[in-house]
This record gives sequence, structure tokens and C-alpha cells, in this order.
Amino acid sequence: MIAELLSVGTELLLGQIVDTNTSYLSQKLAEIGVSVYFKQTVGDNVERMKEVMKSALMRADVIIISGGLGPTEDDCTRQAVAEFTGKPLQPDSGTIEKLRGYFSMRGIDMPKNNEVQGYFPESSKIIINPRGTAPGFMVEKDRKFIFALPGVPGEFKGMTDDSVIPMLLELSGERKTIKSRVIKTIGMSESKIAEILKDLFMEYTNPTIAYLAGDSGISIRLTAMAENAATADSMIAELEAKVRGRLKKIIYGTDDMTLEEIIGHLMRDKGFKLAIAESCTGGLIANRITDVAGSSEYFERGYVTYSNSSKAQELGVPGDTIVSHGAVSEEVALAMAEGVRKLADTDIGIGVTGIAGPGGGTEEKPVGLVYIALATEKYACVKHYRFPWDRKRNKHFAALMTLDLLRKYLMGYLENKIKGI
Amino acid sequence: MIAELLSVGTELLLGQIVDTNTSYLSQKLAEIGVSVYFKQTVGDNVERMKEVMKSALMRADVIIISGGLGPTEDDCTRQAVAEFTGKPLQPDSGTIEKLRGYFSMRGIDMPKNNEVQGYFPESSKIIINPRGTAPGFMVEKDRKFIFALPGVPGEFKGMTDDSVIPMLLELSGERKTIKSRVIKTIGMSESKIAEILKDLFMEYTNPTIAYLAGDSGISIRLTAMAENAATADSMIAELEAKVRGRLKKIIYGTDDMTLEEIIGHLMRDKGFKLAIAESCTGGLIANRITDVAGSSEYFERGYVTYSNSSKAQELGVPGDTIVSHGAVSEEVALAMAEGVRKLADTDIGIGVTGIAGPGGGTEEKPVGLVYIALATEKYACVKHYRFPWDRKRNKHFAALMTLDLLRKYLMGYLENKIKGI
Repeated sequence: MIAELLSVGTELLLGQIVDTNTSYLSQKLAEIGVSVYFKQTVGDNVERMKEVMKSALMRADVIIISGGLGPTEDDCTRQAVAEFTGKPLQPDSGTIEKLRGYFSMRGIDMPKNNEVQGYFPESSKIIINPRGTAPGFMVEKDRKFIFALPGVPGEFKGMTDDSVIPMLLELSGERKTIKSRVIKTIGMSESKIAEILKDLFMEYTNPTIAYLAGDSGISIRLTAMAENAATADSMIAELEAKVRGRLKKIIYGTDDMTLEEIIGHLMRDKGFKLAIAESCTGGLIANRITDVAGSSEYFERGYVTYSNSSKAQELGVPGDTIVSHGAVSEEVALAMAEGVRKLADTDIGIGVTGIAGPGGGTEEKPVGLVYIALATEKYACVKHYRFPWDRKRNKHFAALMTLDLLRKYLMGYLENKIKGI
Repeated sequence: MIAELLSVGTELLLGQIVDTNTSYLSQKLAEIGVSVYFKQTVGDNVERMKEVMKSALMRADVIIISGGLGPTEDDCTRQAVAEFTGKPLQPDSGTIEKLRGYFSMRGIDMPKNNEVQGYFPESSKIIINPRGTAPGFMVEKDRKFIFALPGVPGEFKGMTDDSVIPMLLELSGERKTIKSRVIKTIGMSESKIAEILKDLFMEYTNPTIAYLAGDSGISIRLTAMAENAATADSMIAELEAKVRGRLKKIIYGTDDMTLEEIIGHLMRDKGFKLAIAESCTGGLIANRITDVAGSSEYFERGYVTYSNSSKAQELGVPGDTIVSHGAVSEEVALAMAEGVRKLADTDIGIGVTGIAGPGGGTEEKPVGLVYIALATEKYACVKHYRFPWDRKRNKHFAALMTLDLLRKYLMGYLENKIKGI
């Protein structure tokens, strides 16, 4: 099956918004084996839309349209599809009732304009839109199919998953279900992971393995197609077990879970409290920890000890240690972690010191050098990194590696190196 | 002049990357009055590229292609344009020399594959690419013009600004220069700003006024087209003065300057030092302040006093004040600002306390309520907001409003309300 994608909206041609809908849809189509050879973008204009549909229908079995289903006069996807297919617009009383209900819930009469959102080309199949007002529709022409969905990204993507993909599977006679699961890793490069999973990647065609590189590590998406959800789930589970067996400790979570959320679960499970002393990350670690709802249960306090005097005064880092080893050193990071832990009377203390750049580097201590320490009553460790990026990215990765160190400690992955501090 | 945009790359059709190049280009074309009615996206395939160029050239005066100029066999834009225009590929010795130099600088021989990047359709005009290896080119067919640029976003956007837009202005006989300037504001809605500037917006067609809503306030872009840069600059300056006269204190900067950078300049100019005590923002304010290179010159330290005990213990906020007014109160925010200022011995202290949500709200103190205080030796003030968003967005806006309060203090915009604390 070949699909062609159409994005509709003058704002797309003026560059006022970036089209993320068709890339999302493209990914989903690739997963079910539907090919896409062309995408077209056109403004809010009936004649140009018809021209584009004509060329698309000569090349593809299915056209999927994003946008142009709003209530204003600009929005002309309904009209263009009706004219192109020769199927005049008809009101759907159920949809119009729902639209009225939507407005009356908010205490207002439905504007006359909005009624048009309840009109569809004759013999359309209506595609429900639980996230917005405008439903989509699917209509047939010459044994080919035209889908139209609203352009609002949340609505478009939800309807793609809930309706369009299942409908395409049915149309293609596949009657199959797609499930996917994302395994999130941190601390290893994409090429290294790809090497470790190379034979699985080659061997498996269903479920498939795909890599997604992000700012918080590499994600591995497993996607299965099967007769039903349970079978797809068990196919994924089998492959996931193999992937987990190989990647082990670098895996921190699945699907939408963030690293800081995983840490939150682990902290709560153990009933631990945390305090953080940051220098080069400037508050970013505390900020990420406190992005999690309920983090006040385990996050006691944080210090951003930017000056040497604040390191000494607040955290009790000995002035001697700073002078003899430098503020950016293993010793100072450890003293910060230990100091903040004692000061805040928490189970875990974290200390981070480094040179974010662009200034402040020396030959011995270059820009990007960061020391990350974690201390508990009986345990302490320190790691160092040399990040090659700009200031904000160096901060980002220092924070990320700190969160990962904390995760590893909470998971019991760290060797028990007791330091005399 | 009508342009049609082509994005080339199978990765675009698989949804692996989102096309930001053509939206950027669209904006720039709109600024010089070039119309775009269609965009097309096609994979790395010579025949399909030729099909797309054919339909584009029937509708437009200019085709601008993004992508397909890399050194691998996939990359076929050169070949497709050569076949479509009937102008065979010819080596350009200057370009090939440059490519060789690029590789020898890094101590490696140029791979044979890369030589193809020095071939162009006969009689092309080569478009230099100072940011990468592959130059672009422009070639004529039937008195129409085909531009081809590499798809790497930084290279594509740079070449759009430096070469494509000036070349299009020349081709269209306009021989004009485009300049633009962004005026950045904070603390007023887009609709309110639009109302204040309504008559200017209607009256001015060159320079034009455009609004861009962002996460850090509303930006106003003034764009002028003129015979030369100096004239364009003075046209912009005239309109900018009018805009500034109306929006006054909500304007914090221009072009790429961030709010925290502006604060950095002001802090340095005045030789002030800053300390921050944050509760609900969880370190985000300190993080933004320290995103600026050199912020250690004026940022002394920060506290993330998440627990009540840390507010009392660290900042000397009286336990009574917390009990009688609650941790989220004007009084506690002021005591935090004053406490952190004294503790760190800085000129300015900032205290922020609030309820980020989703939990923790009460009828009297709902989720999203935030108090922001600023204290110096002789001055103190406190502001409060009620943000309606989710946790992360509430944190974001609390930090933003805090930075803006600091900016206003440094600009001398705050009335001199002396508080007895």
C-alpha cells in the first residue's frame, strides 16, 4: 500500500509553523509497512488542493490530509474533498449535536460557523476526535481512500494512533494491531548500542528495533505487528528481555518515564532524603529533581555554591582543600557532597563542581571538566567527565550524568568503594 | 515572483527528521514578497525528483531544493537537476581543490566519493557554503531558476540568508537589501501589544511589523527592504523609536539577547552581587542566571530551600512567620530575600516561594500561586502571581517573572517602596 501525505495551511507556506504532523504519521506508516514517496504542502485554497489531490491519487492508494478542518472560512479541506470526489457535503446530525453540547457545556451558544464542522462528504466514514471539536473523515474515490484529519498536532497524532493506523491495517486486509515500547538508556553511544544489538537488529523484522538519539540518552523502540494486542505485547516482551540481557544497567526506564521520575520512585521506595550542592551546573540538577510532582517528599534542599567562599562558608569545604586541589577537583566535589549531606541531615548528598566554559579553563583543568560526587553515611564515590560542548550543553550533560549516578546508587549498581572523608 | 520549495531525503518520508529548512526559507521569502503556493517532499530518487521538478516548474518561476547534495550514492539532487535541465555535470576545479584542502587540513586524504561534491550542472552558478563541505548551485532552465542547497539546517539557513535571498532580489530586479530587527518584550499579552501598535501595524508596509509569541514573552520583528543596508537600518530605527515610545518598560532587549544576558550586563555595569533563595522554582532561576558565561562575576550563590526547616535553618526565616502566614506568603518571600542577601553579603537578594502543583494547593492558596520578593539594603518589594499551567510551566513562568523583576529593579523601573523588614 502506498500513501501520499498532504499538509494544508497557508501558515505552513509562510513558515509560521513547522509541520511535525506528517513526520509523526510517516513514522507510524513505516511501522506498518505503508510506503510514502511524496508529501505535498498547499495553502488554504480549494483549487490548489484539488490539483494536489489529483496528482497524489495518480501515484498512491491512500491520501492522508492534515489540516483545514477548522470552523473559519479559510478552512477548505471539506469543500475541496467534496468537489474532488464529487460527493457533496452532508450534515451529520450526531456530530452537530456533539458540537452543540461542547459549546453549551462552556455556557455559550455554538457560533453559526462551527456547524460546518458537522458536515462531511456524502458516504464518508467519520473519524472521532476525542481531543478536539472537529472530527475527521475518510471517503472513497475510484477504490482509493482519502483521509482528512485536523491539523492541531495533539489531535492529529491521537487520531493517527487511535483510528488511521487501525483503519489502514483493515483496508490493507492486514487486520493487525501495532504496539511499541521504548527502552530508555543512558551512558552509551548509539553506535556502541547498535554494535551490541547488531544481530538482533538484523534478525528481527517483527518486532522491529529502531534507535532514537535524544538529549537524555539513546532510546530503543521495539514495534510489533500482530493479530491482537496480547500477541504483540508478548512478541515485544520476548525481544525486550534479550535487549535488557545485553544492555543491563544502562537501561533506566521505558516509554515516557524521565530519569528524574525514575529517581523519584526509587527515592520514595527507599524512604531516602536528598540534598544537593552544585557549582558549575548552577541549579540545573535541583531544577530537574523538582520537575517531578511530589519531589518535596525526598528533596530536602539544594545549594548553588558558585563562589569559593560560599563553598567554604556553607558546606564546610575546608579552605585548605580548595587552595591545594583547586575548586574543581575530586576532593572538593567529595567535600561538597559530604558537607551538604551533613548540613541538611539527609541520607544522600551530592556535590558537583566543574568548568562550564567558555572561560575559566586551564591546561591542567580544561573547560568541560566536571567532578560529580555522591556521599552517604557509609559510602562515597566521585566520577569525572570532560565534556566538549558549549556552556549550556556542558551544564546539561553534567546534570544528566549526576542524575544517572544517583540512579545507579539507588539501584545498587555502584561498587562499594568506601572513601575516608 | 513565485517560488516552489522541494525537500529531498528519504529520511523525511520516513519521519526520522522534521523539515525546518523550508519553514525558515518560507519566512525569508515572505519578507521579500516572494509567494510560495506549494511545497513538495520527495525521497532520494532521480526519477521522482524529476517528476516533482516538472510540476513545480509549471507553476513557479523559481525552485529551491533542500538536501541531496551529500557525498553518498543516495544523494542524487545533482544528478536529477542535471538530467532535468539537460545540463550535464561538470567538475569545478576550484571547488574540488577546496574540498581536498578541507580534508588535508584534518590530515586525511579526500575519499573518492567526496569529489562528486565538486561537480555541478553545466553553466551553474556556484553558491558558497562557508559552514560545510558541499557548495550549492543555481542553474537556469526555460528562463526559470533552480537553486539547490545542502539539507544540513545550519548550512541551509546560512546560505539562504547570505546568498539565496540576495540572488532572488537581484533576479527579480529588486536589487534590494532586507534587514530585520527583533524587539523583545515581557509581561504583556500579544493581543494587548497588537492593540497598542494597531495603527502602526496597519500603516507600515515597509518596514513591516510581525509578532512572534515565545516562551519568554512576545517578540516584535521589524523588517525593512531598501536599496542598501544603511537605508533599511534607518527605516527600522524610525519605526523602532515609535514602538519603543509606546511599549517602554516591557521591552527588555533586541535580536538574540536573552533576559538573563541583559541582566548580566546590568549587574556588571553596576558592580552588584546577587544571591537567590528559591522554593517552588527548585533551582531554575539560578540555572538561568548561570547559563550566562561569566555569571560567576555577579552571582554569589543560590539556595533551593524546599523544606520548611531549610527555610528556617538556612535563611533565618522566623519559624513564627512560616507558622502564622504559611510557607507560601508575602512575608516568607520577603524574609527569604532579606535572609539570603544578608547571609551571602550581596547587594541584592531574591526570594521565591509558591505552589508549583499539581498537589499542595488549598482554597486559600491555590496551585500556581507564587510570591516573588527582591531585597537590597534599603529597598524591598514583593509581587505575586497565580499561574494556571502545569508544574513545569508554572516553574518556568515563576522564574521568568523573577528575572523580569530583577531587570526592572536594575533599570530603575520599580517605585521606591521601602518595607520595614
